[in-house]
Formats: sequence, C-alpha cells, structure tokens
Amino acid sequence: MQNVIIFGASGHGSVVLDCLEKEGKYNVIGFVDSYRVKGYIVNGYQVLGSEFDLPYLINRFNIEGGIVAIGDNWTRKLIVDKISKIIPGFNFINAIHPSAKLGKDVSLGCGNVIMPGVIINSNSLIHDFCIVNSNSILEHDSVMGSYASLAPATCCGGNVILGKFSSICLGVNIVNGIEIGQHTVIGAGSLVVDHFGDNVIAYGSPARIVRQRTIGEPYLSTPKKKQLSKLESFKEIESNLSI
Amino acid sequence: MQNVIIFGASGHGSVVLDCLEKEGKYNVIGFVDSYRVKGYIVNGYQVLGSEFDLPYLINRFNIEGGIVAIGDNWTRKLIVDKISKIIPGFNFINAIHPSAKLGKDVSLGCGNVIMPGVIINSNSLIHDFCIVNSNSILEHDSVMGSYASLAPATCCGGNVILGKFSSICLGVNIVNGIEIGQHTVIGAGSLVVDHFGDNVIAYGSPARIVRQRTIGEPYLSTPKKKQLSKLESFKEIESNLSI
Amino acid sequence: MQNVIIFGASGHGSVVLDCLEKEGKYNVIGFVDSYRVKGYIVNGYQVLGSEFDLPYLINRFNIEGGIVAIGDNWTRKLIVDKISKIIPGFNFINAIHPSAKLGKDVSLGCGNVIMPGVIINSNSLIHDFCIVNSNSILEHDSVMGSYASLAPATCCGGNVILGKFSSICLGVNIVNGIEIGQHTVIGAGSLVVDHFGDNVIAYGSPARIVRQRTIGEPYLSTPKKKQLSKLESFKEIESNLSI
Repeated sequence: MQNVIIFGASGHGSVVLDCLEKEGKYNVIGFVDSYRVKGYIVNGYQVLGSEFDLPYLINRFNIEGGIVAIGDNWTRKLIVDKISKIIPGFNFINAIHPSAKLGKDVSLGCGNVIMPGVIINSNSLIHDFCIVNSNSILEHDSVMGSYASLAPATCCGGNVILGKFSSICLGVNIVNGIEIGQHTVIGAGSLVVDHFGDNVIAYGSPARIVRQRTIGEPYLSTPKKKQLSKLESFKEIESNLSI
Repeated sequence: MQNVIIFGASGHGSVVLDCLEKEGKYNVIGFVDSYRVKGYIVNGYQVLGSEFDLPYLINRFNIEGGIVAIGDNWTRKLIVDKISKIIPGFNFINAIHPSAKLGKDVSLGCGNVIMPGVIINSNSLIHDFCIVNSNSILEHDSVMGSYASLAPATCCGGNVILGKFSSICLGVNIVNGIEIGQHTVIGAGSLVVDHFGDNVIAYGSPARIVRQRTIGEPYLSTPKKKQLSKLESFKEIESNLSI
Repeated sequence: MQNVIIFGASGHGSVVLDCLEKEGKYNVIGFVDSYRVKGYIVNGYQVLGSEFDLPYLINRFNIEGGIVAIGDNWTRKLIVDKISKIIPGFNFINAIHPSAKLGKDVSLGCGNVIMPGVIINSNSLIHDFCIVNSNSILEHDSVMGSYASLAPATCCGGNVILGKFSSICLGVNIVNGIEIGQHTVIGAGSLVVDHFGDNVIAYGSPARIVRQRTIGEPYLSTPKKKQLSKLESFKEIESNLSI
C-alpha cells in the first residue's frame, strides 16, 4: 500500500481521511496544513508540517502520493499549483468512498474526492481535482471540468456539462441537458432549468443570475453566529444539547 | 444475540424492524403497542401487548432491550419515559441499517434509528432517541440533540447544530454552520440559510418563521383525503392501479 | 444465467445495462433499438436489430427475457405492447442495482428498473414497468402504479399513492399520505403537499396545477442549447473542460 498524505486538516479533511481509510487502498501517514501547528492531532493523525516541509516529509515517511482536501475550488487549485511547484510530478490520488456507485465506462482523472453515497452513472467523465460530495448524483453522459464541485445532496440529470471551477451548492437540482460555464456558483437549494455561462452567481427556483462573480471569489461563507449574548448563547446551546 | 422488542407497530415500526433484521445484531421478538390488539401480526411479528405488559414480557421472552419506533419526537419521549418508569434502566438499543455510512469518530447515544442510505460524516455527534431517516445526511462536525429527527432526503451541511426535539421535515436542505434551537420544526422542502431559535415553525426557500410552536404540538399531519365521492374514489384509485 | 436483451440503447439504456451487469443475475446479449443501425456498439454491446427482429434474435441467441429501457412512460408502454404482440408472453425482467435497498415485504411486479442508491421501504408495492431512478426514495406503505416513474433524487414519504403513467421529475419531494392520479407530471424540484388528480402538469413549491395534459404527451424535454454561435461554443466548452 502506498503511503499518502492529506493536504488540509479541516472538517472536509476528516471526511477525506474517512474515505481513504474505508477505501483501504492507501496508507494515510498524516496531514499537511499550514494553518495548524505541527504535531496537532486530527482524528488520530498528526499534522506533519506545511507544504514547504514536503521534500523532507516525502523522504522521511516514504510518501508516494497525496490528495488536497480543501473545499473551496479556487484555493484547492492554488494549493495543487504550490505542491506541483515544490514537487514536480507529485502523484495526486483519488479518494473514493467504497459506497460510491460508479457506472459503466465512467472516467475519473486524478485528485478527485468521491464521497459516501455518491452516484456517477454510465459514460460520465470527471476531470481532475473535483469534489463530488455526499449522496450527490451525476447522471449518465455528464461531464465535470477540473476543480468543479458538487455539494452534498445535489443532483445533475443526464447530459449535464459543468465547467471548470464551478460550484454546485448543497441540495441543488439540475435537470437533464444543462450546460454551466466556468467559475460559476449555483446557490444552495436551487433548481436549474436553464443554461448558465461563466463567472456568475445564480440561485432560486428556478435559478436566475444574481450577479457576476470574479475568479477566486470565496463562496463557502459561514453564517454569522446567532445574535444572542455570545458566551451565554453558546453555553445555552451546550446545555440544551446535554442529555 | 440479544432478544429485543419494538415499541410501535406502525409503518415507521416496520422500517425499524427491517433495519434490525438487516443489521443482524439483535433477535426481534415482536412489537409492543397499546393501539393494536394483542396477537395482531405486523410483517410476521406479533403485537405482544402494551407497555404495561413489559414486566411479564421481559420475563416470558427473555427480553434484553428494545427501541421506540414512534415518529413524533415528543410522543417518543413520553413513551421512553413511561418505559423507563415501568422498567428502570431499560436497555434502549440503536437500530442502524447496514447501508448507513458512519464516518470517522462519529458518536451515537442510545435509542436512535439510523435508516437506509443515511450518511453521518466525521466527528458528528447524535445524542439519544433521534431518528435519522432514509437517505438523509448529517455532514461532518454536526450535532443532533436528543429526540431530534431528520426526515427522509434531508441534508444538514457541516457544523450544523440541531437542538433537542427539533424536527427537520422531508427534503429540507440546511447549509453549513446553521444552529437550530429546541422544539423547532422546519417544514418540508425548505432551504435553511439562517439560524432559528426554540419553539418555532419555519418553512420556505429560504425558510422564514411562520409562527411560534408549543412543546409537544403535533407536526406529522396527514393530508386530507381527496374531496371526491369517498368510496367511489377509493375504488377508482384501486382499479387505476390494477395492472 | 438467462440470456436477456435491453430495448433502447440511449443513456438510460446504458444505466440499465450497468444495473444488470452489477446485479449479476442475467447475461446481457445486447441492445434492440429501431433508431440505431444494426451493429452499432454501446458500452461494448451490439445493437442487434429492432423489435421486428425479435423472433430471429430469440432463436439465434437463446434469449429468455428482456427489459425496456425507455425513459418516457408512455413510449415505454407502446414498446412493451409492441413486443408483447410480436412475442406473446415475453418475459419482462426487473433490473435492480445491488445498491438498492428494498425493505421488508416490498413487492415488485415485472419490467421495473430500480437504479443505484434507491430506497423502497417496508410494505411498499411497485406494479409493472416502473422506473425508480438514482437515489430516489419510496417510503413505507406506498404504491406505484404501472408505468409510473420517480426521477433521480426524488422522495415520496410514507403512504403515498402514485397512479399509472405518472412521472415525478428530478428532485421532487412528496410528503406523507399524498395521492397522485394517472398520467400526471410533477415538475422538477417541486414540493408536493396536496393531492393531484389525473392528467395534469403541476409544479412549484408548493406544487400547483399549471395545465391539463393529454395522455402520452412528451414531458422529458431537453433544454435548448446555449444561444452562442454554435460550433464555436461547443469547441469553447470542450477547450474549457480540457485539463
């Protein structure tokens, strides 16, 4: 079994770890993350250092590959580029949860994350560094460009084309035959019945263009915490949840 | 294998039975239900009596545990309380369909029902007596308080906190980082992009508060039958469905 | 293993092929399709001819059954009728992906397609020639009339009755206890909280009747291609997608 590392020790990284462990094809050595101190433990695995420690780590742990576990499509690309610069020809593996169902003649590039419960039906093509998140569906004869992502519980009908870097947010449904350009974001819960071009944010049922979008603009915003008195409210939630 | 009983012989009870049979960890002895006559057969298993027959049944059938299969969150609590009063320290088991995918370091309390196709991703925590229904998703680092429920085809993004007794109805999507209080109901098909406090009913896309809600108020309403001439319409449906 | 053929060599046919291969119960001999030239190869299998070649093909390849892989509910019926006329008593098989979860005492007629990730819960009944598409859910105690269909990522709650030939489009959610008549279409992404009669098109959240519908009227429309200069746009998409 090849020794591999996971770039990114966030919640998404923990799910990628789970996929790799359950897949049972690689031996995970640990995480690489510039935002965590070396030695920090995530789900029983150490943060071994940052990307700049790669040459040392590869040698020290006999690393033969890895995967970038970063949810934001553009940031993921920047990290892939950085790694490729430090270690030209680095081996980016796919992480495929064993419960994912890949149909007949489905093709995958490299560096993709295929989460639990995913369905990719016959003849579909997923390029490189995509995320296909929990229980999402890419129906037959569809294409995902590199660095595109399907959030949990999304569904793309047959013959859908999704351009590079585009992000389909949680719970979106896209009917058969739709084409979506590059760097476009479809907001959570939307129904897509029209084509969309490049660099737009669209949402609603049916989804409409809300505004233009610049390349690399963040889209995975976290909702503001409740506007209650801060510490108290958190304690309150904790005590509410206690059994 | 421990002998167990199922409290509640409704349609939901039949699905819980199916989970337990497929899980293969327990030996189901039968149902306990106060609304059915003793001896009534459900999916090949007898209704053995009501909660008040428990002391006898436990002795007679060597019962070592059980699970409450009641869909309404508050009613489920009342039955759990009643059982715990009759048999202090009763062993409430989890029923987990073998197709459910539980991620790395997921924690479950007791008395939970985890239905087919469910995904619970890494580091999430489910307290006691929850229902996580068919194909629903609880993403990484999320928490469900006791007696909360996710209906079929719901999706909670990462870092979602769901308070005790709250009910997320069929097909709801909740984006990352949302907090929902106790005893709150999110109506079917909603998209949740804001936090919600305790004791409210909210729905829509995006979900908005519709009104306050009293604790224990029923929420699993059954639609009225079609307003056609009664018997005829039913016969019509039957004949329409006949092959 | 029985030798079988698939009627319809479209994208849907490729998914049905995948189901049959993974199910491992039948030996697929090839496709029958009047719109493809004989000898045309789909996922490694030949188009052997049209329905009118059946008597010869059955004899030549020792065919013992088959399945109609046509997405449109009414067209599927016309083909079933045509086959039954040419070969009275033809053996229409079910195709059930091994990842589908069928609950306790679920009944299936014949000629049904049950796609990957599907959940059919306890005591539900599916008549003949239905499609239950990827990750869709038919909850407990529900009924699908013959030639009805659930598109990918749909969810029917418990005690739902779906009439013959009715089509539930992609991503639709239907709450518990709903009855839907025959030949009715519920548009993509809808939330259904009311009963619907026969021969209507309804959609929205909540779904409302939009207009009447004639029997056999097509409903699986393909969106128009983008209004860019034709060849250029396709090349552009291709180059956008190239790695």
